Amino acid sequence: MSKKLTSRSEDYSKWYNELVVKADLAENSAVRGCMVIKPYGYAIWEKMQAELDRMFKETGHQNAYFPLFVPKSLFEAEEKNAEGFAKECAVVTHYRLQNDPDKPGKLRVDPEAKLEEELVVRPTSEAIIWNTYKNWIQSYRDLPILVNQWANVVRWEMRTRLFLRTAEFLWQEGHTAHETEAEAIAEAKQMNEVYATFAENFMAIPVIQGVKTESERFAGAVETFCIEALMQDGKALQAGTSHFLGQNFAKAFDVKYANKEGKQDYVWATSWGVSTRLMGALIMTHSDDNGLVLPPNLAPNQVVIVPIYKNEEQLEAITEVVNGIVKDLRSKHITVKYDRRDTLRPGAKFAQHELQGVPLRIAIGARDLENGTVELARRDTLTKEVVSLDGLTDKVEGLMTEIQESLFKKALDFRDSHITEVNSFEEFKDVLEKKTGFISAHWDGTPETENKIKELTKATIRCVPFVNNEESGVCVYTGAPSKGRVLFAKAY
Amino acid sequence: MSKKLTSRSEDYSKWYNELVVKADLAENSAVRGCMVIKPYGYAIWEKMQAELDRMFKETGHQNAYFPLFVPKSLFEAEEKNAEGFAKECAVVTHYRLQNDPDKPGKLRVDPEAKLEEELVVRPTSEAIIWNTYKNWIQSYRDLPILVNQWANVVRWEMRTRLFLRTAEFLWQEGHTAHETEAEAIAEAKQMNEVYATFAENFMAIPVIQGVKTESERFAGAVETFCIEALMQDGKALQAGTSHFLGQNFAKAFDVKYANKEGKQDYVWATSWGVSTRLMGALIMTHSDDNGLVLPPNLAPNQVVIVPIYKNEEQLEAITEVVNGIVKDLRSKHITVKYDRRDTLRPGAKFAQHELQGVPLRIAIGARDLENGTVELARRDTLTKEVVSLDGLTDKVEGLMTEIQESLFKKALDFRDSHITEVNSFEEFKDVLEKKTGFISAHWDGTPETENKIKELTKATIRCVPFVNNEESGVCVYTGAPSKGRVLFAKAY
Repeated sequence: MSKKLTSRSEDYSKWYNELVVKADLAENSAVRGCMVIKPYGYAIWEKMQAELDRMFKETGHQNAYFPLFVPKSLFEAEEKNAEGFAKECAVVTHYRLQNDPDKPGKLRVDPEAKLEEELVVRPTSEAIIWNTYKNWIQSYRDLPILVNQWANVVRWEMRTRLFLRTAEFLWQEGHTAHETEAEAIAEAKQMNEVYATFAENFMAIPVIQGVKTESERFAGAVETFCIEALMQDGKALQAGTSHFLGQNFAKAFDVKYANKEGKQDYVWATSWGVSTRLMGALIMTHSDDNGLVLPPNLAPNQVVIVPIYKNEEQLEAITEVVNGIVKDLRSKHITVKYDRRDTLRPGAKFAQHELQGVPLRIAIGARDLENGTVELARRDTLTKEVVSLDGLTDKVEGLMTEIQESLFKKALDFRDSHITEVNSFEEFKDVLEKKTGFISAHWDGTPETENKIKELTKATIRCVPFVNNEESGVCVYTGAPSKGRVLFAKAY
Repeated sequence: MSKKLTSRSEDYSKWYNELVVKADLAENSAVRGCMVIKPYGYAIWEKMQAELDRMFKETGHQNAYFPLFVPKSLFEAEEKNAEGFAKECAVVTHYRLQNDPDKPGKLRVDPEAKLEEELVVRPTSEAIIWNTYKNWIQSYRDLPILVNQWANVVRWEMRTRLFLRTAEFLWQEGHTAHETEAEAIAEAKQMNEVYATFAENFMAIPVIQGVKTESERFAGAVETFCIEALMQDGKALQAGTSHFLGQNFAKAFDVKYANKEGKQDYVWATSWGVSTRLMGALIMTHSDDNGLVLPPNLAPNQVVIVPIYKNEEQLEAITEVVNGIVKDLRSKHITVKYDRRDTLRPGAKFAQHELQGVPLRIAIGARDLENGTVELARRDTLTKEVVSLDGLTDKVEGLMTEIQESLFKKALDFRDSHITEVNSFEEFKDVLEKKTGFISAHWDGTPETENKIKELTKATIRCVPFVNNEESGVCVYTGAPSKGRVLFAKAY
């Protein structure tokens, strides 16, 4: 394989960019800010999708599909949402190209084919969906509507980074409609909980659940719940959000229902989403200077087997044993790849699988055949051991669980040791500079103070955590009274 | 449920449109020509996706994701492809909206935010993908590339119909790169075969495999293979295409590889796709005047169970029995829904499930409890029978296979009885008028004759079939010599 990655301590950002490309996860495209998700990266995303989709369906949701385009008049209907996204949206103005009369072989927009109304490429789908729900909802019998969409969206960001911030990204967006405020709030919280469970159990990423402040809220939401994770460089990453939208969209699109008593009322709404940004979170939580580290639950190949042989005869004998191992592992639903490419030497294969984060590597050579053993190499700890073929399947099965849990534990320890309670602004700045991570501090609750702190330190309020929030004190910046600590951090 | 559908004999096109909407499959949106795929319709599409995806992976393909946008300069690189799609493409020209100074509360395109280069919303992805493959391919070791993408595409069609022809649609597009011409042709044929197998075994739609004539070929292809199906109204529907692209895109994007001898050569390509159009084919192959008819392999619910009760006590007793049935059926991987809504009477439930094409309905009432029986109602034949609870699971399992096969057989009989060999142009026109369906006729092989026949009859050459094509004769229109019969039809 190609030469080593830049180390994390040398340049974390460079390490990340190199890793994404060299591990074959994604790359930049010819379109400004848009990425190509390569097959290996996409296979990880597919695993995320499958599990999330299962969880959504288990909580009663169904998938549907709504148009890519939002007519301008619908886009502007919910004022705050429109204001929030107007500055970064791609706009379709024409529906045809024609030969450019001045440049043979080139095309240009056909001036005769101008749309009567411009179409915004969806940055999020509340507008087009609520305009549709209007026709789906007449009475309480039509509620709740529990729908999710897997889709691409476009936000014309100026500074982009693979997975973390791209002009086009893939996501899912849930859009639900309810009879009551309480039911909608419960739904928004439930989906935030689903995201937390997914992040922790599947991605092995510990997250903090909480509420966003007004300035960090989704444009058009009454309340935004979120899951916040901490990356290895001490910066926070918002990994998922779930919004209680109140009746804002119902009012903007005039969506009323008749309740059991026949009285008309506006419908209550939620929306919630996670995106390919999760790939960035996954990479920056577990990976090391040798490359990607994947939790077994998300690894396209949980195990690779590499034969070490000097001639065809040895390869054949090894392959016979490997076929048995593969069969046994697959019967336990462990995904395994036998890497018998003859174009690469074992060392090169080892390097590639290490770079690509395969959780467990099994090497088997001529001496192993004699001894009835194989060599196991764990990607997370970079440790090796020689084990007997007897009981190998159980051993590997156990290791899958152990690696998954160990990665979570390691990330949790790191996260917990990077939450610092501070009680003065000096301390605040000091921690940001030396240790980074989450800063747990009192805040007076005003957007002015929040902005001032952001200006001075680049740290934002990541969330008001659901847990551990009942303690009165004084604002770290203004000294005004505070009802509880909030979490600040520099963030992706 | 709402009132009856227009019958097929009265107005086939109206029947189709009503069915799509009333069975909750899809509806028109606020965006011209773009549809909303509703949860029930989307659930069927998800079943298609899952099976196709499995088949693609089984044949060695991996999924990836490429940008939604194609910069104009890439779009125009392969001349024929560009020419074919230029007339119907949505073009992004700006990346920001701003407050309209003349209309308070309204937005307008920000004239300062004009893109330097326009972006075409992909109508198909050859251009953006081959521009990417250029960087992935240096030598024969990098080949073949076997990649598929699930995505939305946009073609600004003027006359649209739900599923059949929409401005935005969902599809998969495979894009492969090969060392040799023979390998690429074999790949294109293999994927056409995959589509045929899927259509026949999964959708219960018999298809004819063949090659398109030059005028019906994909823009930029050397050869287009296809599967053609016949709808109940005697019109043909192109259900999938697989293209051998030769070296056209490799040349347009300068994609060369070094072969084993170190010699540089252009790469050989294929692309292949099926889309949400398949939903239209499914509906128009099997459904009847009562609504949708679904083959069990694609039904979101293969079985529904409706309780018939007078009071809570009866419902409880029925539910106890039903719970056992549900458990047994699920253990056989049969998807079953127990419809115990108390807001609808049994008759209304029957009507809904009939309209939505659930393959098998089980009704169970108080008398059934006494007799140890249930009533089975087949959607495809509209027949009912009372059967014993003993052996019910095996009975239902057998029916799933029987219904699947019976639907295929029925469609095959219809199709085969609607292929007419004609030997004169009078006969040709007569069949088109009275019987419709496929017309098997000799053709002189020239685009001129093909166009003339199209002008006169609206029938096009659907394909030159792979099978039964070795018979010399004279062109049905010009009398010039012909090497074999081709299939004409009016088509969707």
